[in-house]
Amino acid sequence: MVPIVSIVGRSGSGKTTLLEKIIREFASRGITVGVVKHDAHGFEIDHEGKDSWRHKKAGAVTVALSSPDKFAIIKDVDAEWPPERIISSFLTDVDLVLTEGFKGSPFPRIEVLRKAVSTRLVSEDNALLLAVASDFEIESPRPVYALDDFKGISQLIEDKVLKGHTNSTVSLVVDGRTVDLKPFIEDLIREAVLGMIKSLKGCSGADEVELKVKRK
Amino acid sequence: MVPIVSIVGRSGSGKTTLLEKIIREFASRGITVGVVKHDAHGFEIDHEGKDSWRHKKAGAVTVALSSPDKFAIIKDVDAEWPPERIISSFLTDVDLVLTEGFKGSPFPRIEVLRKAVSTRLVSEDNALLLAVASDFEIESPRPVYALDDFKGISQLIEDKVLKGHTNSTVSLVVDGRTVDLKPFIEDLIREAVLGMIKSLKGCSGADEVELKVKRK
Repeated sequence: MVPIVSIVGRSGSGKTTLLEKIIREFASRGITVGVVKHDAHGFEIDHEGKDSWRHKKAGAVTVALSSPDKFAIIKDVDAEWPPERIISSFLTDVDLVLTEGFKGSPFPRIEVLRKAVSTRLVSEDNALLLAVASDFEIESPRPVYALDDFKGISQLIEDKVLKGHTNSTVSLVVDGRTVDLKPFIEDLIREAVLGMIKSLKGCSGADEVELKVKRK
Repeated sequence: MVPIVSIVGRSGSGKTTLLEKIIREFASRGITVGVVKHDAHGFEIDHEGKDSWRHKKAGAVTVALSSPDKFAIIKDVDAEWPPERIISSFLTDVDLVLTEGFKGSPFPRIEVLRKAVSTRLVSEDNALLLAVASDFEIESPRPVYALDDFKGISQLIEDKVLKGHTNSTVSLVVDGRTVDLKPFIEDLIREAVLGMIKSLKGCSGADEVELKVKRK
């Protein structure tokens, strides 16, 4: 799995602004970033009246837009996908994934605190808490950064999360659930898949394989 | 692969409106539809100032939004993905994919003609041409429908494309290229993958497996 860090904190504490600065900082360091944002209340992303909006409105369950420099997908789901599944399916090609708003997910996290909103950490006893970004002085067993110290926080992420992280070479999602793989199982699956497709036309030197299988 | 039908025709001929009506018709028949639209000039899907827009602007290469009823992905690409790749990666769970604007792709197609725009077919000699939808009388070796006869056109798609189509149980993308599989190879890969993961925790009765592998 790609390394993941969550920015958590109460609504209005400044998560989006901090995230924006961290993204920009990593982009300037040549580290590619993907973002997953949770929105419990749903979101409006498409523009009313546009073709894709009209197609979605007409009843298409998935709408994709493709252009030379980017593409977009909007997809209906029966139940919210866990962020791990979205990441395994769509964000395997970045160096780092930053998430916003998945308080319940088991990702290392940085909590944002703003005095005007709350002075109490929601992640106080959370072993996954990496650091706190706060606009006031607070005692914490974890490093505390000024709320606008995006450089320091980015450096912490680079040191504690990116360094030493070996990107896995296999991602496996079974019936919508991301499966954790031990290194030797990962090696076994990778070599089995590369070996299996080797003799197919044009597949002998394959570097990246994406395989979807449905039981008959 | 999921069955695919393209709606083609010159700009301003009425592709989007016809597509909209066909989507609605299929939705009312209980057939799930996905749409892929090509936009050579790029598109603006996100709203300026929104969080996802800010994150993308800051330099995130992929932005995902997740909510209880839908999710969205916006992703930068170095070169346009062929529609087959988008479909193999994101639209394997619908009954039918309709595309708009991929004139060069090898999908069965319906061409839309509007007198005010052009009276000449662009797909005249194209063996993939299923039918013509036109607002004037035109001679064609293929069935000609009135431009607003979405019911007739939907029925044609159902009869000629959906009936008898067996959804493949394996989709394979190698280095960004969708690989065509003969039925016995498909069977072999499916059974090999299901067999390989069977002994992993919680995977014995797997119905859908998504596997991504990178060469080390």
